[in-house]
Amino acid sequence: MNATDPVVLPSATDLYTAAARVGGIVRRTPVYEIDGQEFGVAGARVIVKLELLQHTGSFKVRGALNTLLAGPVPSDGVVAASGGNHGAAVAWAAARVGVPARIFVPSTSPPVKAARVASYGAEVVVVDGYYPDAWVASQKWAEGRAVAQIHAYDAPEVVAGQSTLGLELAEQVPEASTVLVSCGGGGLFAGVTLAMGETLPDSRVVPVEPERCPTLHTALVAGSPVQAEVGGVAADSMGAAAAGRIAHAVASQHGVQPVLVPDDAIVAARTFLWERCRILAEPGGATAFAALHSGAFRPEPGETVVVVISGANTTELPGS
Amino acid sequence: MNATDPVVLPSATDLYTAAARVGGIVRRTPVYEIDGQEFGVAGARVIVKLELLQHTGSFKVRGALNTLLAGPVPSDGVVAASGGNHGAAVAWAAARVGVPARIFVPSTSPPVKAARVASYGAEVVVVDGYYPDAWVASQKWAEGRAVAQIHAYDAPEVVAGQSTLGLELAEQVPEASTVLVSCGGGGLFAGVTLAMGETLPDSRVVPVEPERCPTLHTALVAGSPVQAEVGGVAADSMGAAAAGRIAHAVASQHGVQPVLVPDDAIVAARTFLWERCRILAEPGGATAFAALHSGAFRPEPGETVVVVISGANTTELPGS
Repeated sequence: MNATDPVVLPSATDLYTAAARVGGIVRRTPVYEIDGQEFGVAGARVIVKLELLQHTGSFKVRGALNTLLAGPVPSDGVVAASGGNHGAAVAWAAARVGVPARIFVPSTSPPVKAARVASYGAEVVVVDGYYPDAWVASQKWAEGRAVAQIHAYDAPEVVAGQSTLGLELAEQVPEASTVLVSCGGGGLFAGVTLAMGETLPDSRVVPVEPERCPTLHTALVAGSPVQAEVGGVAADSMGAAAAGRIAHAVASQHGVQPVLVPDDAIVAARTFLWERCRILAEPGGATAFAALHSGAFRPEPGETVVVVISGANTTELPGS
Repeated sequence: MNATDPVVLPSATDLYTAAARVGGIVRRTPVYEIDGQEFGVAGARVIVKLELLQHTGSFKVRGALNTLLAGPVPSDGVVAASGGNHGAAVAWAAARVGVPARIFVPSTSPPVKAARVASYGAEVVVVDGYYPDAWVASQKWAEGRAVAQIHAYDAPEVVAGQSTLGLELAEQVPEASTVLVSCGGGGLFAGVTLAMGETLPDSRVVPVEPERCPTLHTALVAGSPVQAEVGGVAADSMGAAAAGRIAHAVASQHGVQPVLVPDDAIVAARTFLWERCRILAEPGGATAFAALHSGAFRPEPGETVVVVISGANTTELPGS
């Protein structure tokens, strides 16, 4: 969609349709309770949703698969530019529906990431340079071809796909009062917020952003998504150039204010998750937890807080 | 207990008493379903129980905590010789009940392991040499002191503690028909077998041993626990010098035959768990899964197989 088109949010029907489509193909990721007193949170229950155990190691498969199943998929398949979670998710989803995927990966991305994308059956094209170079190459290849492109976060089918995480969570933890989610482009945040609105309307969803990737925060201040400078430890998965228009609209409608966390809080949260829980998240996947762990977000007494651990695409143990 | 004493198995009451004691202190670790077709298992459901997300990264805290809570604990606290999961579990449990713990660690154990034991508040004594040197030093220190020792696997309170994993699992997956558990000294195997016998008597528990740590297999062939030569990739957590008498008795009574898996199957299973599920297990923790992943264990059509992933005390990613 163009910046001047009206923003289309997925409807309640779109969310439940997505759940029916992807259910039984994506994994129903587990939840479990940990003791908040281990990191200074008293008087509230803390439950983590282990979405990092999803296919390809992140929630992104939900949106990618929902988009392809909404079909029909053009004859030349699907194309994406990404060396990260989105590329792996598109490759995986394409394999599940049996269409070809061509993923353009910048040469500056670690070879292990390209290998991972290829391992799901996609054709990987390594493009000399950085992400924008890969993106340009993907667009050039797509010209004149009958090919689908899946936005990484700002399309109704993608947001509806990500919402299935929220629908699951509402079934698993019906007593949830607050849900903390990491927010990059905002596809997960928007989807989970819409899902909780349908299922547990008294709950709230709090997006958490790295201070150095404050795309939603910046959009809310500016009144619309704008380019934000991004960097820091979580930039590879959280560093969207701008928040999605859907995420911005959802945040505005719900009066949501993102919680911002510094890089050292993300690193400390990631270390705790590994050292004390044996959960190995990537920095972006640990960002929501960082808000709780660092005290940037403080639950009300008696609350049940669910924290989504959203990704695990890392090749390093904390401290190593 | 001495080798000539009759073997005492925990009673059903002992199991439920243990569950009441440790419930709410140990974590109720989650389960989730994965698609067996990803590794060639068709026609059966595959559910993994993520016990590696337990405190200290292994099930061992269940037995250690149950033992200390059965109390009273002598005034000088508790002592153990272990640089591994048992040492960490004893240290953690002692901290939870507020008694001092002194853990003797061999100097040949990686320093990171000693640091981990110390991080739970125990006094760590590094002893020059190998495990037997640490054990001798621990016994010497214990002489004339009022101090508790917790067996790593062959005591009724320990087995009753480990059984709480089985009681949990029976609630989480009441349709379980087979449970696969890694078997070193056999404390987990014995506990889970007794728990399933109480809760889901039509189910079966299958112990899985590395070919190079075949302690239960050797005991069943010999008619009693005997010293077995141990080695291989999982020896640090699975290399008990001999199977427990309790484990041997339980296996004999239930007509159980362990499944043996070679080291390369353990490595492949561990790699799959990380690459495809983002579960980072240690080799011993992946041993039960190796039986299913390698085809050494083949489920019956229509079965629901639960695989316990029992430990994550590793400092290496597969392939790194």
